[in-house]
Amino acid sequence: MVNQKYLDKAEVLIEALPYIQRFNRKIVVVKYGGSAMLDDELKKNVIKDVVLLKLVGFKPIIVHGGGKEISRWVGKVGMEPKFINGLRVTDKDTMEIAEMVLAKVNKELVAMVESLGVNAVGISGKDGGLLKCRKKQTEGGDIGFVGEVTKVEPKILEDLLEKDFLPIIFPVGYDDEFATYNINADDAACAIAEAVHAEKLAFLSDIEGVYKDKDDPSSLISELHVDEAQKLIDDGYVGGGMIPKLKNCIDAIEEGVNRVHILDGRIPHSLLLEIFTNKGIGTAILREDGEKYYNEHE
Amino acid sequence: MVNQKYLDKAEVLIEALPYIQRFNRKIVVVKYGGSAMLDDELKKNVIKDVVLLKLVGFKPIIVHGGGKEISRWVGKVGMEPKFINGLRVTDKDTMEIAEMVLAKVNKELVAMVESLGVNAVGISGKDGGLLKCRKKQTEGGDIGFVGEVTKVEPKILEDLLEKDFLPIIFPVGYDDEFATYNINADDAACAIAEAVHAEKLAFLSDIEGVYKDKDDPSSLISELHVDEAQKLIDDGYVGGGMIPKLKNCIDAIEEGVNRVHILDGRIPHSLLLEIFTNKGIGTAILREDGEKYYNEHE
Amino acid sequence: MVNQKYLDKAEVLIEALPYIQRFNRKIVVVKYGGSAMLDDELKKNVIKDVVLLKLVGFKPIIVHGGGKEISRWVGKVGMEPKFINGLRVTDKDTMEIAEMVLAKVNKELVAMVESLGVNAVGISGKDGGLLKCRKKQTEGGDIGFVGEVTKVEPKILEDLLEKDFLPIIFPVGYDDEFATYNINADDAACAIAEAVHAEKLAFLSDIEGVYKDKDDPSSLISELHVDEAQKLIDDGYVGGGMIPKLKNCIDAIEEGVNRVHILDGRIPHSLLLEIFTNKGIGTAILREDGEKYYNEHE
Amino acid sequence: MVNQKYLDKAEVLIEALPYIQRFNRKIVVVKYGGSAMLDDELKKNVIKDVVLLKLVGFKPIIVHGGGKEISRWVGKVGMEPKFINGLRVTDKDTMEIAEMVLAKVNKELVAMVESLGVNAVGISGKDGGLLKCRKKQTEGGDIGFVGEVTKVEPKILEDLLEKDFLPIIFPVGYDDEFATYNINADDAACAIAEAVHAEKLAFLSDIEGVYKDKDDPSSLISELHVDEAQKLIDDGYVGGGMIPKLKNCIDAIEEGVNRVHILDGRIPHSLLLEIFTNKGIGTAILREDGEKYYNEHE
Amino acid sequence: MVNQKYLDKAEVLIEALPYIQRFNRKIVVVKYGGSAMLDDELKKNVIKDVVLLKLVGFKPIIVHGGGKEISRWVGKVGMEPKFINGLRVTDKDTMEIAEMVLAKVNKELVAMVESLGVNAVGISGKDGGLLKCRKKQTEGGDIGFVGEVTKVEPKILEDLLEKDFLPIIFPVGYDDEFATYNINADDAACAIAEAVHAEKLAFLSDIEGVYKDKDDPSSLISELHVDEAQKLIDDGYVGGGMIPKLKNCIDAIEEGVNRVHILDGRIPHSLLLEIFTNKGIGTAILREDGEKYYNEHE
Amino acid sequence: MVNQKYLDKAEVLIEALPYIQRFNRKIVVVKYGGSAMLDDELKKNVIKDVVLLKLVGFKPIIVHGGGKEISRWVGKVGMEPKFINGLRVTDKDTMEIAEMVLAKVNKELVAMVESLGVNAVGISGKDGGLLKCRKKQTEGGDIGFVGEVTKVEPKILEDLLEKDFLPIIFPVGYDDEFATYNINADDAACAIAEAVHAEKLAFLSDIEGVYKDKDDPSSLISELHVDEAQKLIDDGYVGGGMIPKLKNCIDAIEEGVNRVHILDGRIPHSLLLEIFTNKGIGTAILREDGEKYYNEHE
Repeated sequence: MVNQKYLDKAEVLIEALPYIQRFNRKIVVVKYGGSAMLDDELKKNVIKDVVLLKLVGFKPIIVHGGGKEISRWVGKVGMEPKFINGLRVTDKDTMEIAEMVLAKVNKELVAMVESLGVNAVGISGKDGGLLKCRKKQTEGGDIGFVGEVTKVEPKILEDLLEKDFLPIIFPVGYDDEFATYNINADDAACAIAEAVHAEKLAFLSDIEGVYKDKDDPSSLISELHVDEAQKLIDDGYVGGGMIPKLKNCIDAIEEGVNRVHILDGRIPHSLLLEIFTNKGIGTAILREDGEKYYNEHE
Repeated sequence: MVNQKYLDKAEVLIEALPYIQRFNRKIVVVKYGGSAMLDDELKKNVIKDVVLLKLVGFKPIIVHGGGKEISRWVGKVGMEPKFINGLRVTDKDTMEIAEMVLAKVNKELVAMVESLGVNAVGISGKDGGLLKCRKKQTEGGDIGFVGEVTKVEPKILEDLLEKDFLPIIFPVGYDDEFATYNINADDAACAIAEAVHAEKLAFLSDIEGVYKDKDDPSSLISELHVDEAQKLIDDGYVGGGMIPKLKNCIDAIEEGVNRVHILDGRIPHSLLLEIFTNKGIGTAILREDGEKYYNEHE
Repeated sequence: MVNQKYLDKAEVLIEALPYIQRFNRKIVVVKYGGSAMLDDELKKNVIKDVVLLKLVGFKPIIVHGGGKEISRWVGKVGMEPKFINGLRVTDKDTMEIAEMVLAKVNKELVAMVESLGVNAVGISGKDGGLLKCRKKQTEGGDIGFVGEVTKVEPKILEDLLEKDFLPIIFPVGYDDEFATYNINADDAACAIAEAVHAEKLAFLSDIEGVYKDKDDPSSLISELHVDEAQKLIDDGYVGGGMIPKLKNCIDAIEEGVNRVHILDGRIPHSLLLEIFTNKGIGTAILREDGEKYYNEHE
Repeated sequence: MVNQKYLDKAEVLIEALPYIQRFNRKIVVVKYGGSAMLDDELKKNVIKDVVLLKLVGFKPIIVHGGGKEISRWVGKVGMEPKFINGLRVTDKDTMEIAEMVLAKVNKELVAMVESLGVNAVGISGKDGGLLKCRKKQTEGGDIGFVGEVTKVEPKILEDLLEKDFLPIIFPVGYDDEFATYNINADDAACAIAEAVHAEKLAFLSDIEGVYKDKDDPSSLISELHVDEAQKLIDDGYVGGGMIPKLKNCIDAIEEGVNRVHILDGRIPHSLLLEIFTNKGIGTAILREDGEKYYNEHE
Repeated sequence: MVNQKYLDKAEVLIEALPYIQRFNRKIVVVKYGGSAMLDDELKKNVIKDVVLLKLVGFKPIIVHGGGKEISRWVGKVGMEPKFINGLRVTDKDTMEIAEMVLAKVNKELVAMVESLGVNAVGISGKDGGLLKCRKKQTEGGDIGFVGEVTKVEPKILEDLLEKDFLPIIFPVGYDDEFATYNINADDAACAIAEAVHAEKLAFLSDIEGVYKDKDDPSSLISELHVDEAQKLIDDGYVGGGMIPKLKNCIDAIEEGVNRVHILDGRIPHSLLLEIFTNKGIGTAILREDGEKYYNEHE
Repeated sequence: MVNQKYLDKAEVLIEALPYIQRFNRKIVVVKYGGSAMLDDELKKNVIKDVVLLKLVGFKPIIVHGGGKEISRWVGKVGMEPKFINGLRVTDKDTMEIAEMVLAKVNKELVAMVESLGVNAVGISGKDGGLLKCRKKQTEGGDIGFVGEVTKVEPKILEDLLEKDFLPIIFPVGYDDEFATYNINADDAACAIAEAVHAEKLAFLSDIEGVYKDKDDPSSLISELHVDEAQKLIDDGYVGGGMIPKLKNCIDAIEEGVNRVHILDGRIPHSLLLEIFTNKGIGTAILREDGEKYYNEHE
C-alpha cells in the first residue's frame, strides 16, 4: 500500500491546479529586497519559488535592490556617507559603487537560477534602453544621482521572455544625456509591471502587509480593493514607508496590473503560498471589481 | 505566523521542481484502462493528474479502452457473445457497438478535461489516418475485426499538441480497404508513443507492477533496466497477461521511449506520485543506461 | 485527332474556372442530413463533392446529423420512444444512444473522406469546447436534453483548417455544468458558419428549395434576397419545416455569411452543380446587395 | 428535375478529382511555343488551362519563346538576317531586338493571366540571376550571343511561388561578364524544371508527340519509359528536331522530374486533357519505374 | 604609422553613421531618368549609389523611364512621330515600341545591379497588377495610350522587398480592359512611393532643384516646407516643367512620404551626397513640421 | 557646382561597397582591451566603429576586459595584491571586485552604444549559461579563481542577435558547482567566435601586429596564412605575449572563423580601416586557402 504521506503530497499538487491554470503564461513581476536578500536560506527559498513559477508556466521577472550591501561597500572604500535633511546623497562616486554592487548581486541571483536548471539573464535598466529616467527633485537640497522613471522600453524583456529566459533586473538607468542614475527598486518594479502588462506584481520585503490598526498585530488585512487602499491612506490609517508602497500598488492596479501583493520575505515560501493556496500570507490589493478569495488570516 | 501546515504544502511543491524541470515540454503517453475507468472517484483523479501534467508543461496524450462498458452494451442489444478457443470474436456487429461505446467514453473524458479548464480533442485512430492496421492473425480461427497496427501517421497529434490541445484517443483504425478494426489499447499506446517520440509511456491498469516473486506481494520491483525485463521473461519469472505488457514496454524502450511505467490505476494519483516523487509506485522500465532513482518500496 | 468527347470535358473544366476563383480559400459549411445519408450511392456522391471543393482550394466543413439511424438504435436496445405534445423526448438514455450513433456515423464519413486521399478529423461539439449550449425551453413540457447553442468556440476549427484537415462535426455539446445535449444540426451548422465567418452555408436535405407556390412544382425559386425571404415568411407563403430553415438562412446572412443554399441532397452532385455552374439547383438566399447569377430553373 | 447535361458536367468534375489530388501543390513547368503562340484563340486556351492548374492547387511556371515575332521585328528595323552553315546568327543588334520582342510577348501573357484573376509576374533569366549561361560552341563558325545554361538560381521562382504568383519566364540570361545571351526555350524550361524539382514538365509545341513509325500517323506513342525513349534514339527511330527534344526529356527525368509531356499545342486544351483525363494527348516520358495509365490513343 | 589619407576615409564613413541610422529599413523610391540614363559613367554611379543604399539597410525601389531611347527606336522602324497641339501621340504601334524599349532598359539596369552582387528583379506595372490606370484626358485631342494611375497594388513590391530583392520598375500599366498604357515615370514613382509608404522619394533628372529666382543660379533652395512649395507655385515663382514636378512632391508629402528630393542626376553621386551628408545637393521638400538640416548651398 | 570635397566623400562610401557586401549579415567578434579602453577619445572611436559595422549589416559582438581598472579598485579597497611565481592570484575577494569592475565597464559601453541609437545588451558569461569553465591549472601554485572555458552555450547570443541587439560581454563564468571564475578575455572571445560561427574575430589591443623581425618596425606583416603563423611560432620568430595570441588566432581559424585580425587599438578607427579598406592596419590571419588582398604596409 501507498502510505498516507504520499497521498497527501499528491493532494497538495492537485490543490495547486486551479492556481496554475489561472495564471498560465501570465507575467509576474517580483520586487525582491530587504532581509530576504541577506539570509542565505531565505534567498534560496525565494529563488526556488520564482523558478517553480517559471516551470509551471508563469513568466516571472525579478527586480532587485542591493540593500545593505551597498552601504557596506561604500564603507569598504573609505567613503563618508553624506546626508541632506536625513536623505542619503548619491554622488558620482556612490553611484559608481552602487552600480557595481547591484551588478554583483545580480550575477549572484543569475547563477542561483541557472543552478536550478532555468535560463536567466541579468540586466540593468541601461540594457536595451529599458529604463529612462530624470533626476528626482527633492525639497531641501540635491541628493545626487537618484532618478525617477520617465519611460520603460519593454522590448528587451518581451524578447527575453519569448526566448524563455527569466529576466533579473537591477534598477539603474540613464537620463537623456546618458548619465547614470539609481532608481528606487519599488518604483522600477512598478513601472516595469505596467509596461509589460503584468498580471501580478509582488513586493517581497520586511513588511508583513497592511494592518487595520498598526498597533494590533492581529489586524493584518488579507485583501484590499484599490479604493479601500486609497481610503486607508486618506484616513491616515497607514503611515511612514507604507504610504509610498501603497501608492505604488494603487498606481500599478490603475495601469492594468490585476493584483499586487505586499509580502513578508522573511516567511519561507511566502510568495509560493500567496499564489498557490487560498491562504493570504500578506496583503493583496485588487481592482475595484476583483474577487476576494483568501481565507482570513488564522 | 504562518502555521506548519502551509509550510509543508510549500515544501511539497518545491520538491516537485526537479521532476517538472526534467520533463518540461516532453510528451507523455498515458494508456488508461481497467478498474480506474469504472470508479467515478478514480476517474476524476486520473483526469486531474493528467491535467496537472499538462498545466506544468508536459504534453500528455491519453489512449483509452472501453473496458467492461463494451460487454455491457453488447448484452444490452441482445447479442450473444461468441468465442473461439476462449478468444472473444469481434464480428461486424460487435465492432459497430465497440466503436460506438469507445466514442461515448471518449467524449466523457473530453468533457471531464474541458471542465478542468484544459482544451481536449477526442479522436479515433481513423481521424487524420492516425492508425493504419491489418487483420490480426490468430491460431485456431478467425476472431474477426481485431487489427494490429501497421503504421502510425502522427501529423494529427503533432498538430493538436502544437495548438495546445490534449489529445484523447480511442484505438479503432482501418485497414488498406478502409474496413474498421478494433486495436488493443496497450498496443496502440505503445505504437503511438514510438511515433511521437514520447519521453514516457505509462500503463495505468489493474496491475501493481512486476514482482520478483509473483507469490510474494512484498517483492514488487521499482525499477528495471530493459535487459533485466527481458531476462524476467526468458527465465519464466513472469507469466500470463504480464508477458505481452512487458514486451510492449521493451519494444517502446527500444524504439526510443525513455521510461515506461506499469502503474496500478486503483491507487489514487499513482501517475502523479510516480512522476513527481522519488517514490516508485509501480514498476518503471528504463533503457539499459538509464539511471534508477526511486527509493525502494516501503 | 482528339474526339469531341474529350474537348467537351475540357470545356466543362474551363467553365468551372470563375467559380473556383471566386471562392478560393473561402470557408463553406455543409449541413449534411436527410435521405442523402441513407443511400450509399448518394452518400459517396456528397463526399466526393465536398472532397473536390477541398482539393480545388475551398475550405469545407461538414456538420451532420444521424437521421433515422438514431431511432433504429433506440429501438434496438428495447427502449420505448416517449413524446410530449408530439415532440420526441431526449431523456438521458436516449441522449447516450444518440451520441453513440452520431459518433459512429461521424467516423464512417471520416473514413470515406480519408479513402479519397484527403485528411479528415471528426469531432463533436464537446471537443475543444466547440459548442456550448443551454437547455431548450419548449412549451408544453420538458423534452429533455435538447440544447440550443449559446456560444461557439471556433479555435479548434481554425486550427484544423490551418493544418489542412477537413473537419466533420456532429452536433452534441454541453452546458455550463458539462451535461450533454443534442443540438439540431441545422442550428449547429448555422451557428458554426457564423463563428468561422463562412462564405457559404449549404443545407443538404430532402427539400428541393423554396417555392413561390408550394403546390406548383414549377415555381421553385433559384435566388432570393434576404428581404424577399423574410417577406415570404411574413406573408405566409412558406410554412411547416421551411420556416425554421429559412429563419436559419436569414440569420446566417445577417451574421455575415454571404450566400446560403437550400439543396436537395437526393439529386446527385447537387452541391457541386450549385457551386460550379450557373444552374441553380435549389434556392440560394443572398444579402440584400448580392448579385443574382443563376439561370432560371429549366 | 435536373437534366442530364448538368449531371454529365458534374461527372467530368468528379473524374478530375484523382488527378487534382495527385499533383496538389506540385510544380509544373510549361514550355509554351510554336503555333499555339500565334493563334489568338489557342493562346487564350493555353492560358486558361494554366490558370486552371493554378487555381486547383498546382504551381505552374510558364517558360516561353518568341517564335516568328522575333524574325518579324528583325525585318521591321531593316536588318538582314545572317546565317552560318544554315544556323541563324544572333549578333548584338539581333540579340537586342530578340530581348525586346520576348519582353513584349512576356507582358502580353502576364496581362492575359491577370485578366483571369490570377497574379502573374513576368521575368527574364536575368532577374534575380535566374539563368547564368556561357556562349554555346557550335561547329562551323560563331553564331553569336546564343547561350547554354550553366547555372539556375531558383530563389526568385521559389519566392514568387511562395507568394502565390504565377511566374512567366523568357529565356534570356547573362554570362559571367554579364553579357546578354539568348537561350533555347526548351533547354531553359528543362534546366528550370530540374532546379525547382518540378513534378512535371510539358513541352507545348507543333509536334503531336513521338511516333513508333514516323510515316504512320496512327503510331503515336502515349507513354514511354525513359529507357524506351533512349532506345528510340539509339535505334534511329526518331530523327531531326525530335532528337534534342527527347534528349531534354530524358535529361529532365534523370534530374528528378517525374513525368515529361510532349504535347501538340494546336489541339485546344491539350495540356488540360493530358493532365486531367486518362486520355494521353501526346507522348509522356516517365521514369523507368513510373506507372503507365493512359488509355491507348483512339 | 597610418597616414592621414586613411584616417580621413574612416572619418567619412563615421560621418555617414547618423544618416544610415535614421533611414535604416526605410523604403526609398528613386525615380531615375534624364541625361543620367544616357551617360555610361553617370549610369554606373547612380546604380552604385542605389546598391550602397540597399547594402547599408535601406530598401530602395527604382522607377525609370526610357528617355530618348524610345524616340530613337520609333525612328529606327521608320515610323513618323505624330503630334497634337505639340503633344506626342502614343498610338498602338508607338506604345508597342515604348514597352519593348523600356523592357530592354529595365533588363540592362537589372544586370548592372546584379553585377554588383545585389539581387534585382525588373518588372513593369502589369506584373502582379502593380499599376492600374485609365486613359489620360487631354484638351485638344486624343494623344493615345497615355494613362494616369488609378490604383497601385503594392503586394508584389512588398513581397520582393521582404525577399530581399531590389525592384526595378518601368511604368507601363493596363486599364480595366487590360489595354496597355504608358505612364509618366514621375507620376508612377509618386503613386508607388505613396502606396508603399516610402520614407523618401527622390527624382533624379536634369533639373538642379528649385530656385528662388530662376534667373539667378545662386538662388537654389536646399530645403522647402510643403507649404512654402505650394506658395512658390501660387505666387508664380516657378514655371514650366517644374510645376507638375513640384505638385508631385507636394502630393507625395501629403500622402505620407516624409521627404522628397529633386536632384540633378548629372552630378556624380548626387543621390548619395544628398542622403549621406549635410550638403543639400538639390532641393528637398519636407512636411510642414519637418526639420531642416542641410547646410546652405556653398 | 558641387565641390571636390563632397565628391571625394562619395567616393569613399562607394569604395566601402564591396566590403559591406562581403560581410553582410556575418558575425564579427571584437575583443576590446588595452589602452583603447583608457583613452576617452579612442573609446568613442572604437564604439563608433562597431556601431557602424552593425548599421551597415554586420552582426558585431563585443568581448571586453577591465584592464587597469581592476587593479585600481583592488587598491582602493585596501587589498594587497598577491603573486605566485609572478602570476597575480585571484582570490575570492579579488574575484568579487573584478566582477564588479567588469560589470561597471560593461554598462558604460552599453550606454555609449545606446547613445548612438543602437540597442545593446550587456551580459557576463553567467547569463544564459554562456560560459562554463574549470579552474585553470598552473605550474607553481594555485592562482585562484582563474578559469578556462569548457563549454560555450551560444543560445543567448543567437537570440540577442536575432532580436537585433548588439551583445557586449565580460568574461566571467562559472564552473560545474557554479563558483565564479575570471576568464582571459582573449580566450573568451576566441571560444565565443568559434561557438557562434563568426566570420571574423578582431583583437583590439596595444599590439601593432606580427613582425617578421621584432626589432624592425618596418617588418609588420599584413596577412598571414594559418600555416605561416604556425611556422613563425615553431621557428621562434615571435615570443612573449604574442605566442598565446597567435595560438588563439590559429585555433579560431581551425574551428571555422574565416579571418582573425590583430589590431592596434591605439590607432583611431583601426577596426574600420582594416575591414573597409584594402589597407591592412595590423595583421590578418587567414585560412590556408584564403585570399590575401591588402596592399602592403606603406
